Amino acid sequence: MKPVYIAGTGMTQFGKLHEPLIDLLVHAAQGALSESEHLSPDAIYVGLMNPEGFVGDSNFAAWLTDRLGLSGVPAMRVEATSSTGAAVLHEAFQAVASGNVKRALVVAGDAMTHLPTRKVTQLLSQVIAAKDRQAGATMPALAAMVTQRWMHDAKLSEEDCRRALMKVAVKNHDMGQFNDRAQFRKPISEEKYFDSRMVSSPLCLYDCAPITDGAAAMLLTSEPTDIRIWGIGQGTDTLSMTDREELTSFRSTRAAAIRAYNMAGRGPQTIQFAEIHDAFIPFEVLSLEDTGLMERGTSAQAELDEITHIKGKLPTNISGGLKARGHPVSTSGLAQVIEAVSQMRGQVDKQVQIKKTGMALCQSTGGLFNQSFVTILGKPRARKAPIEPETVEQLHVPERLSLLNGKRPRRQTTGVVETFTYLNAPAEGFPAPMLLALVNTKGGNHIIARGDPERPVEIGQTVHLKKIEASGEGGPYYFTDDAERVKQGEVSVKMLDRKPKGALSQVKDFLSGSSLKTHYFAVKRKKKSS
Amino acid sequence: MKPVYIAGTGMTQFGKLHEPLIDLLVHAAQGALSESEHLSPDAIYVGLMNPEGFVGDSNFAAWLTDRLGLSGVPAMRVEATSSTGAAVLHEAFQAVASGNVKRALVVAGDAMTHLPTRKVTQLLSQVIAAKDRQAGATMPALAAMVTQRWMHDAKLSEEDCRRALMKVAVKNHDMGQFNDRAQFRKPISEEKYFDSRMVSSPLCLYDCAPITDGAAAMLLTSEPTDIRIWGIGQGTDTLSMTDREELTSFRSTRAAAIRAYNMAGRGPQTIQFAEIHDAFIPFEVLSLEDTGLMERGTSAQAELDEITHIKGKLPTNISGGLKARGHPVSTSGLAQVIEAVSQMRGQVDKQVQIKKTGMALCQSTGGLFNQSFVTILGKPRARKAPIEPETVEQLHVPERLSLLNGKRPRRQTTGVVETFTYLNAPAEGFPAPMLLALVNTKGGNHIIARGDPERPVEIGQTVHLKKIEASGEGGPYYFTDDAERVKQGEVSVKMLDRKPKGALSQVKDFLSGSSLKTHYFAVKRKKKSS
Repeated sequence: MKPVYIAGTGMTQFGKLHEPLIDLLVHAAQGALSESEHLSPDAIYVGLMNPEGFVGDSNFAAWLTDRLGLSGVPAMRVEATSSTGAAVLHEAFQAVASGNVKRALVVAGDAMTHLPTRKVTQLLSQVIAAKDRQAGATMPALAAMVTQRWMHDAKLSEEDCRRALMKVAVKNHDMGQFNDRAQFRKPISEEKYFDSRMVSSPLCLYDCAPITDGAAAMLLTSEPTDIRIWGIGQGTDTLSMTDREELTSFRSTRAAAIRAYNMAGRGPQTIQFAEIHDAFIPFEVLSLEDTGLMERGTSAQAELDEITHIKGKLPTNISGGLKARGHPVSTSGLAQVIEAVSQMRGQVDKQVQIKKTGMALCQSTGGLFNQSFVTILGKPRARKAPIEPETVEQLHVPERLSLLNGKRPRRQTTGVVETFTYLNAPAEGFPAPMLLALVNTKGGNHIIARGDPERPVEIGQTVHLKKIEASGEGGPYYFTDDAERVKQGEVSVKMLDRKPKGALSQVKDFLSGSSLKTHYFAVKRKKKSS
Repeated sequence: MKPVYIAGTGMTQFGKLHEPLIDLLVHAAQGALSESEHLSPDAIYVGLMNPEGFVGDSNFAAWLTDRLGLSGVPAMRVEATSSTGAAVLHEAFQAVASGNVKRALVVAGDAMTHLPTRKVTQLLSQVIAAKDRQAGATMPALAAMVTQRWMHDAKLSEEDCRRALMKVAVKNHDMGQFNDRAQFRKPISEEKYFDSRMVSSPLCLYDCAPITDGAAAMLLTSEPTDIRIWGIGQGTDTLSMTDREELTSFRSTRAAAIRAYNMAGRGPQTIQFAEIHDAFIPFEVLSLEDTGLMERGTSAQAELDEITHIKGKLPTNISGGLKARGHPVSTSGLAQVIEAVSQMRGQVDKQVQIKKTGMALCQSTGGLFNQSFVTILGKPRARKAPIEPETVEQLHVPERLSLLNGKRPRRQTTGVVETFTYLNAPAEGFPAPMLLALVNTKGGNHIIARGDPERPVEIGQTVHLKKIEASGEGGPYYFTDDAERVKQGEVSVKMLDRKPKGALSQVKDFLSGSSLKTHYFAVKRKKKSS
């Protein structure tokens, strides 16, 4: 493969911008072209997640090409949910590495803040498996269940867990105040963190990245510059968290990291600073381990010990991260790499200038680690540091998934709670609060089920399951710790909702009409083709 | 670049399938993997256009990977409106050509028929520039205006024009009856063609490809097989047809073809058969010229002379084309290449087996030629046929576009009709019939304006323009041949609509709420960022 270098970069302010998406893309792209002394690209890669849903327009690749005065230049859109910014970089990298393209302009952007939060939550929830979405799962709820399980496995008290998360949130906000592109430029105090409202237990407001508008752009070229992309790798994992063997370490990130290190010919020990996808604060902690930058089980302590701080051994998210810089979903993966470039080129506020910037790692993820990307960039003359021979781990189908594939799950009656969350900010059409649990059923399947938010629950507890009437195959279920109430039919959807409206009609409201239609269609009118 | 070969292919039946989109993708992918003797791919490329809008789900790359038992394998989505199938092939090609990927599985699919036609028209219209969409333009209306202009420039009578189109439509339906994957498997008679209803003058029902469900897949590999992809190229053109210098020849196709021929090192004279994007029948005629397969101005006669028939010199769309095989919008670009492979491998009905299948050209387009792709495939040992030194034509900004970029268009008062159509199947929220014209205004801008469908109109006619009240900058306008009526305020939106409801509220209905909001937001609250 031909070596690939980074020329100019461009990025808009992140925040509530009140500007049309196309203008954001144009501003970022013009910035990158101008910083590249107007070298002309011979391909344009645009990263966008559901612009049709967010702003009602399509055909942005051609539109942007027009607006840049580059009409005629090949242009294409790439999408990989919330790792779209990294995915579009990956595609442009391959285009240049193949020799088919000399210079590729990479652009990504989002306009999200003009929509109500619940509408944004609903649009983002389309990435979640339908069966989990029907049970009421949202991205924060899934992240919260991961965190709850991590707390349990690491034998942390809720207080210790939240203290570690607080340290990361405070650090990222502290750093964000020096980034003039960041959405939030004020530090937060420990008190403010602990006083903030619970979004989905144990995650509070300051554990969750905000809704953000913004765009980013970069020119990749085969002509040598001061920064080379040494390695780039991707991995995927099952759509539903319920089909995984592990809940607190993510195969997609591990695979992406191994691929990137192998391509770079340089291992984790060469990395001097990192930008990690902290859409939820615990993801920074977990992904530092999955990228091999920290030993498994050590990163929470490392965060407490300030190893990830600007003066620590591995400065992490010194840009403010997704948490403080903001998280335009299609853009973050590319913005991270631009932040690393800014550090390497000394373009940051001197108070947050990292000393050793020879080699950086950026990690971005889409959905609940359905996709992960790892990008390694550094000086073109970086010394080679041979890594232990490592290969991407055997790509095997998780047992649970292969069991389920093509088979209808049986009705479930009892199971054991693997993790749970109390969700206070549900998607459109669901009541608040909701109790959600990932239940390992007697039949060996895992499902996300709804419980009574007034009842306590714990990991390892045995619960009874009942299908919510008239729902499609696979769910949703509700669960209770009281078998008697199931028998007597006392556990009802109504009780869970504390609203006159039944849950199923709410599920129907939540799912878009067409999706539901397709779904039921499939059940009713199964017909072979191909 | 490494050479790229085609291993197995898979394709579902095309038509009204009553199956969830994910199942269609799985069926096609399993077909391709099974034909490839289950060689395991190390990357998956998924081509999908707006699945969020069509079926309410996202994250298909991860989902498909799951369902194929390939969880862990890098997977990504690519989109380029109705040329998505060709775009995703282009990306997978580059991945293999770069050496980063050994085998790439390419999959594309659509589920469309479960939605009402007007909803499909509205979703597909999101690819059209907002200003043209606001005036009521749909894809068939734009294609019809192109055809009307072509008829004028070629000095064809409406009868001759329709006779040439009829020949193509009858041929493609004739061929489709032998393709067991085709949506329509019945020949149509000349009478049936001429008796069919007018969709948008001069295009009738049999000039337009149908709404279709279907999926296609292909495994690309760096390991030699019996078929090599010799060349692949893309080009773009302005988002709005009003910004172009030519209306009947498309720069995107010309650029894509030149790029593909140059990569292949083989010119148009080596092509033995073709699959051309006949979403509208006249596109087959025009694209045969833009791809260099026929001299400019000769293809209508060539169609009449049956040169594109199975026994002609250049058999074209012997698969039935998009017209008879059906047009799942994300899929067609990949399906075309699979049809060419089927011919080369002798997998078609012997009644439609082309004799010379050494080298084929496939052309796919997105939007109104906003994007075009050309793919050249053939035997790995195809003789080299040096082409005349050709370079991609200078990528210049059309004058009109550069004039407009960043400037607000002035209010327009008069102009000359460049082309027009009477549209009988408008998008949701618009009345039928509508008269639409592309008007070259006194100020040198081109706009699409609405006229009185009860009045006659012709190319070259001078018309008076009036802005539809309260509409955003740029449009929509209406036009009339009667200056007096404009002066006296008699030309009203009401008159055009023949409905009590004003056009602007209808425009508002048509545009999704969010788009409109963004649009007006931008006008009212312009604020600089970046």
